[in-house]
Amino acid sequence: MAVRLAENNYGKSRVRLLRVVRQDGRHDIKEMTLGIRFEGDFEAAHTKGDNRKILPTDTMKNTVYVLARQYPVEAPEDFCLHLIEHFLTYNPQVSRVRVEAAESLWTRQTHGGKQHASAFLRAGEEKRTAGVAGTRDGTTIEAGLRDLVVLKTTKSQFEGFLRDPYTILKEDRNRILSTSIRAKWIYEGEEIEFSPVWHGVRQALLDTFAEHDSKSLQHTLYAMGEAVLTNFDPIREIRLSLPNKHFNLVDLTPFGMDNPAEVFVPTDEPHGLIEATLRKD
Amino acid sequence: MAVRLAENNYGKSRVRLLRVVRQDGRHDIKEMTLGIRFEGDFEAAHTKGDNRKILPTDTMKNTVYVLARQYPVEAPEDFCLHLIEHFLTYNPQVSRVRVEAAESLWTRQTHGGKQHASAFLRAGEEKRTAGVAGTRDGTTIEAGLRDLVVLKTTKSQFEGFLRDPYTILKEDRNRILSTSIRAKWIYEGEEIEFSPVWHGVRQALLDTFAEHDSKSLQHTLYAMGEAVLTNFDPIREIRLSLPNKHFNLVDLTPFGMDNPAEVFVPTDEPHGLIEATLRKD
Amino acid sequence: MAVRLAENNYGKSRVRLLRVVRQDGRHDIKEMTLGIRFEGDFEAAHTKGDNRKILPTDTMKNTVYVLARQYPVEAPEDFCLHLIEHFLTYNPQVSRVRVEAAESLWTRQTHGGKQHASAFLRAGEEKRTAGVAGTRDGTTIEAGLRDLVVLKTTKSQFEGFLRDPYTILKEDRNRILSTSIRAKWIYEGEEIEFSPVWHGVRQALLDTFAEHDSKSLQHTLYAMGEAVLTNFDPIREIRLSLPNKHFNLVDLTPFGMDNPAEVFVPTDEPHGLIEATLRKD
Amino acid sequence: MAVRLAENNYGKSRVRLLRVVRQDGRHDIKEMTLGIRFEGDFEAAHTKGDNRKILPTDTMKNTVYVLARQYPVEAPEDFCLHLIEHFLTYNPQVSRVRVEAAESLWTRQTHGGKQHASAFLRAGEEKRTAGVAGTRDGTTIEAGLRDLVVLKTTKSQFEGFLRDPYTILKEDRNRILSTSIRAKWIYEGEEIEFSPVWHGVRQALLDTFAEHDSKSLQHTLYAMGEAVLTNFDPIREIRLSLPNKHFNLVDLTPFGMDNPAEVFVPTDEPHGLIEATLRKD
Repeated sequence: MAVRLAENNYGKSRVRLLRVVRQDGRHDIKEMTLGIRFEGDFEAAHTKGDNRKILPTDTMKNTVYVLARQYPVEAPEDFCLHLIEHFLTYNPQVSRVRVEAAESLWTRQTHGGKQHASAFLRAGEEKRTAGVAGTRDGTTIEAGLRDLVVLKTTKSQFEGFLRDPYTILKEDRNRILSTSIRAKWIYEGEEIEFSPVWHGVRQALLDTFAEHDSKSLQHTLYAMGEAVLTNFDPIREIRLSLPNKHFNLVDLTPFGMDNPAEVFVPTDEPHGLIEATLRKD
Repeated sequence: MAVRLAENNYGKSRVRLLRVVRQDGRHDIKEMTLGIRFEGDFEAAHTKGDNRKILPTDTMKNTVYVLARQYPVEAPEDFCLHLIEHFLTYNPQVSRVRVEAAESLWTRQTHGGKQHASAFLRAGEEKRTAGVAGTRDGTTIEAGLRDLVVLKTTKSQFEGFLRDPYTILKEDRNRILSTSIRAKWIYEGEEIEFSPVWHGVRQALLDTFAEHDSKSLQHTLYAMGEAVLTNFDPIREIRLSLPNKHFNLVDLTPFGMDNPAEVFVPTDEPHGLIEATLRKD
Repeated sequence: MAVRLAENNYGKSRVRLLRVVRQDGRHDIKEMTLGIRFEGDFEAAHTKGDNRKILPTDTMKNTVYVLARQYPVEAPEDFCLHLIEHFLTYNPQVSRVRVEAAESLWTRQTHGGKQHASAFLRAGEEKRTAGVAGTRDGTTIEAGLRDLVVLKTTKSQFEGFLRDPYTILKEDRNRILSTSIRAKWIYEGEEIEFSPVWHGVRQALLDTFAEHDSKSLQHTLYAMGEAVLTNFDPIREIRLSLPNKHFNLVDLTPFGMDNPAEVFVPTDEPHGLIEATLRKD
Repeated sequence: MAVRLAENNYGKSRVRLLRVVRQDGRHDIKEMTLGIRFEGDFEAAHTKGDNRKILPTDTMKNTVYVLARQYPVEAPEDFCLHLIEHFLTYNPQVSRVRVEAAESLWTRQTHGGKQHASAFLRAGEEKRTAGVAGTRDGTTIEAGLRDLVVLKTTKSQFEGFLRDPYTILKEDRNRILSTSIRAKWIYEGEEIEFSPVWHGVRQALLDTFAEHDSKSLQHTLYAMGEAVLTNFDPIREIRLSLPNKHFNLVDLTPFGMDNPAEVFVPTDEPHGLIEATLRKD
């Protein structure tokens, strides 16, 4: 029996970048963390220690900064595309490049309703994400977000579920519903304006979460995905991964008190997890 | 030589609470994590294993939920005061109680400029903090915030500093200034409206950071502290702890390029740290 | 265009368990964190809010504890298999169950070379992992480990690599090599003794890392995978994911000093990442 | 009312270092993360933006690497002392320097009972710590450890405690006792061999935890501190901070089963916290 190298890739992870654009009276910033992966003809490096086809990961990192100097770095999807084009052009040994970007969001500071020209505030832990993969035959573009934490105090039930001998969960007509939205969607077509669409999808996810009359987190997930697919033409598929962040109602009866859905314990573990992909046919 | 028990305390940490207030057409939520510490007559527990004066930390946790049912839980400072009063009243063996609260901030979801009545969005990692300590002689009330991350792209220099043989840092007339604000201030006087003051202090810190013509982070720290002390009467002391979150200018000269303050590497380590307490005399 | 539910699953994550076995004169403990995923006929829950085929994730969690009471919980792979068999037996609506386990390792405390019968020490952040998936047609069993951090101070070079205009990395004949091993391997065949094999694979990975005359991390990865596949019959495939944890040699020349591979800066970001799957044909 | 600068300090945090000592047939490594704080005459920097007395924190970092080249870096306490002496000697504007070190522990890899000369394994998350402060009048040396996680399955009770109306905790004669030891002790006297003493204290803490017939975590904390103070002459004071890491017995009665202290849920929050300082008189 022979040992064989199957799938393999290498690259640089956690390449951090801040790009400043300085115009008169207004500065703009973009912060993102990038990961780059090469697939290609690397068998000799693995089996013989022959590095002649290995571009150092240090060079990948340098290339990020060189291209960030050459391009304005607005939509993460566009910056990933520039990197992929560069790497495929100059590296015949590489068959496929994947670049992932996670943008750390900043908002402008405000004072008296007015936005500041050059002072910014970190806008939470939410990340705008992009994942672009390219070969010499084409590219696939995925956009997304993660760590967008939401909570609603009404319009959430969980009833009529399957019971077995180990089921002691009570039916609940008025539970807290909370999740940390992780979404990825795939674009098809050309000339997509990545940033306006991203903001639109984000708002559609938030609006649907807020308004949906939820029978379960599955039910709400589906409604969120459907809202995106029906409202955004260039999106043909969306994947949602939603942890069910449980807020447990505190039992105050040992202390002679009721608890009409007012006092809860937020918990991190264990948690439910609902995942699904929705697709347009 | 005899061994002696000196300072000691015990309590419960990471007690998590979500309190919902449901009114017609509008729900409000408060989420916080509490820590409780008792000081008192606990020598026998340590030296003899005699637990008769040890109220279980489990009971401290239950008390948080019982009081959260009895009180609306608005300002963390007020809720800490309720807990302290309760524990001092019913526990003669306790001489001092300290309660710390870290509020996880939520904002209302908005749609078309309108705020939602019952759907919320996590407002980043910033925490509103309170630390209240009480004895039978009185209480001290400390408020604060942490993890408020800010960045400015102009009005920040660092020049004219001391040099020794190991100093190779270049003078910089246009550096990125970024920090994660951690502030604690002490109140004196009665009838303080904790929440409006907290929002005012936060805005004063942000405005001063944004507008200050910074010669160093020390210089800006002092201006921030001074702005708070001069504008808020009931605050007699403020402590600021500001990491200098370095954004290193990328050297692109090996690649034949300049870099006019456009492309930076954000770093987490090492980082500077500037700390100071300002006080009114 | 119609929207359609494609792949979907749900389950419980971060279910934590400590199982104690008490025998005369010797206690044993196992701690693990489990995740359970169901795939099956859940379309109506998503599209109609009909929960009749949804077993609550709370029940999955309870089942973990019930089965932990019934079985001794030794190898994580065996415990995952028990869970899968249970869920498939009692849930006709489920077509596939996947259970993942991450064991937190404890070692016995020692005193004077003697092992303690009932006192333990957390053995680092390394996790023993298992991932078992079952359908009514069969099961696949994957074992692994992660966060096993290693470092060697010799026998590590990186030379003769590809250079482009953005390559400034120096060739290095004596670099520090360090990684955090993440490995997953797939078993085939019956009657595998999971725990002895796991310990054997772990030792083979460590020994190969230590002894290999490394021309690159790819080269060492391949040697590690090959050592496992050639020495362990029931393993037909292994995947290794190895971050290149860089230790940068400090340039002391500005201070008039050399640095003969003695003083380094450990860094977390950016880092290289090498991934490959090796397979027996 | 005038605003005044009270206590203030500045410095560099998270300065990471790996020091390799290469001898024939045997390499040794030390990894630590350092923090440096200066107190002194920095008023003008704060109030006027005058940096003439501010040595850059970048220089502090460089000094760490320069001194690491000049000294072998064995005990963290000794390395902190070298840094303090350097900074006080060359910086008249500084009145007090504090250096903190947290050593990340590595063990040698072993094969067939034999230790490897140049390959190492990360020994968990435990850190050996040192905190040394120096003025022109003298130094104080503190050593310690943190994140040393231990667990015992017997000899742990919690009974006879104080009860109030919110107490529902059951007495427990056979609970799991687990904590993450954080200890700091202060040395007095000269010529202390820091590393052997550190290992001795660590073993004394572990042995006492393992053997103590615990009536509460306070009771065990005191025994641990007492064991250190009575067995180590140069230690005059020790502070222990011990979270009570709760392992909750799972209630299996809803499923018709007992649970004779076999199946537990490990939890991170909430947790008890016991802190005390013991001193020799």
